[in-house]
Amino acid sequence: MSFRQRRDRLRELLAERSLDALVVTYPSNRYYLSGFELHDVQFNESSGTLVVTRSGKDYLLTDSRYEDAAKQFVSEDELVIYRRDYIGTLNMILSLCGTRIGFESNAVSAHRAGLMQSARRLEPCNGLVERLRLHKDAEEIAALKKSFALNHAMLKWVPGILREGMTERELAWEIERYFRENGASELAFPSIVAFGGNAALPHAIPSDRKLQENTGILLDVGCRVDSYCSDQTRSFWFGAQESDFFRRTRDIVARVQEEVIRSMEPGLPLADIAWKGQHIFEKEGVADHFTHGLGHGVGLDTHEQPSFSTASTGRLEPGMTVTVEPGLYYTDKLGIRLEVTVLVEENGITVL
Amino acid sequence: MSFRQRRDRLRELLAERSLDALVVTYPSNRYYLSGFELHDVQFNESSGTLVVTRSGKDYLLTDSRYEDAAKQFVSEDELVIYRRDYIGTLNMILSLCGTRIGFESNAVSAHRAGLMQSARRLEPCNGLVERLRLHKDAEEIAALKKSFALNHAMLKWVPGILREGMTERELAWEIERYFRENGASELAFPSIVAFGGNAALPHAIPSDRKLQENTGILLDVGCRVDSYCSDQTRSFWFGAQESDFFRRTRDIVARVQEEVIRSMEPGLPLADIAWKGQHIFEKEGVADHFTHGLGHGVGLDTHEQPSFSTASTGRLEPGMTVTVEPGLYYTDKLGIRLEVTVLVEENGITVL
Repeated sequence: MSFRQRRDRLRELLAERSLDALVVTYPSNRYYLSGFELHDVQFNESSGTLVVTRSGKDYLLTDSRYEDAAKQFVSEDELVIYRRDYIGTLNMILSLCGTRIGFESNAVSAHRAGLMQSARRLEPCNGLVERLRLHKDAEEIAALKKSFALNHAMLKWVPGILREGMTERELAWEIERYFRENGASELAFPSIVAFGGNAALPHAIPSDRKLQENTGILLDVGCRVDSYCSDQTRSFWFGAQESDFFRRTRDIVARVQEEVIRSMEPGLPLADIAWKGQHIFEKEGVADHFTHGLGHGVGLDTHEQPSFSTASTGRLEPGMTVTVEPGLYYTDKLGIRLEVTVLVEENGITVL
Repeated sequence: MSFRQRRDRLRELLAERSLDALVVTYPSNRYYLSGFELHDVQFNESSGTLVVTRSGKDYLLTDSRYEDAAKQFVSEDELVIYRRDYIGTLNMILSLCGTRIGFESNAVSAHRAGLMQSARRLEPCNGLVERLRLHKDAEEIAALKKSFALNHAMLKWVPGILREGMTERELAWEIERYFRENGASELAFPSIVAFGGNAALPHAIPSDRKLQENTGILLDVGCRVDSYCSDQTRSFWFGAQESDFFRRTRDIVARVQEEVIRSMEPGLPLADIAWKGQHIFEKEGVADHFTHGLGHGVGLDTHEQPSFSTASTGRLEPGMTVTVEPGLYYTDKLGIRLEVTVLVEENGITVL
């Protein structure tokens, strides 16, 4: 689907809400709708603002540094270069767009929103673009498949480079190099590379801990290819003598993952499926050691909708891409997480 | 200076403003004051919130993924783990902190600020931590020196690997590898590697353009070492026959840079110094081709205060680190930028 077609679909949602325009500032929403800049320059420095109007004329506001990049995606009369006066420029454009204008209040700072509201009332309106992004189109699925193919290739390659004495940090860098030298533009998120007890930290930062013979390894790794993220986790044993605790724990997590994937069908409530896994953890008496949600959407962001847990309210729908990542954690001892991503299709599912 | 000492200095600023506490959500401010997490997880996903109180008891709020990381920086009674209810947890903590509480309204989304304000009135209060960060302490200067030393080493190394036919993208990756394999934790910002006319784009993205004999090259590159950013730009000729236009333009930019650096002295107004450079551009009749500010602060962020241009209002003060980066751009033809960073000391300056 072209960027223009995506904006046309957004126009339908604007009409439903009786909005004349939406001010898009969430970076991956801006990119999804226009192709312009997936990232902001810095936490407090936007690369640009997209204004999508119901009438069909859209505007991309950016500063002169991005003028040439922006010209690839919008026509001259849609491009607005602001110098120092971002708010004044935005207000001038919004005055052309109608009276009821929404903005993404979760992607504008309170300070800037105050300045924006000083000239005209804007209506907080979050989640509209996210609703479109929930269902991946053919181009997105093609990019996701490439991203996951590279992720699989890396995971196939990595056991061959493991050696005693290498640190988590060194291994993390080898993984990043592999991704970058084989087609990824960047990591989707900082890799988790955890040996032994470090794997019990769901957000372990690679350290100088050295790999020893007979240790559990957890790798939670993602790359970005053609702008789309992949996200996978593997837990496996390094050495010949796998501990019983590791194998037993891994078997439970694997059983949960299999059961969940077997239960996934378009149309089913996400919470019902998550409960299938939860029941196994409970029957095994280990549910207290599963400390996070079962999964999340993956696309332009590593974490996006839908969230997938026993608390989810939605259903599985064709076009969704959802991770399935049960885990069990025993502080300082052991951590196991197994994560794949499932694409929901019209008549079933595919593991990416 | 220890993180605790930095928070003590912030307490003095809180007292000046009669604030009982400040809710710190800007990631690099949070890191500066606590050592905890320089980055947020994702654009819309905070790694944690620091609450600094005038009374001296501080709180770090984060989720369970970060519990172990947080324990390295705060004591058990200062650490608060929230599960789903971030706002409820924050309100509970703030109810212990007094009545006048400030928050960084430029680092909280309008949506979240609304939720925060629903329970109690918070006062927008930006720039307090930035005021402290303006003057680098000994630890920060040591880290900056390491970061710039690596940046210089890379710039000395890179001419030796240039070869005809290599693409901007390939060279950018070689540079990143060098940084990462020699002590950098990450790039400070995406490298600008531009050949020929691409250098005229102040925000050029490395492309598949190939290096040809007798071409101008612009490299604007930064790495992060011990959490601190370096940022340098060089423009130089590849090949034996430097064009007159390139040399003439480069000479003007170099003269501006030298004149500006020669003029820098603690106590002088930033704008006055910037005018010294501006006057040279004007005398040469090329001022229209200098399209950005003269420089900016560098530290935990690549772009931080002070801004350095003819519009600046402040003065050069000891402890500041400021880039000096004049440039001249001719669309599709040529771009020259020369950037170094200057540390202001009690009795003069040092180029890092």
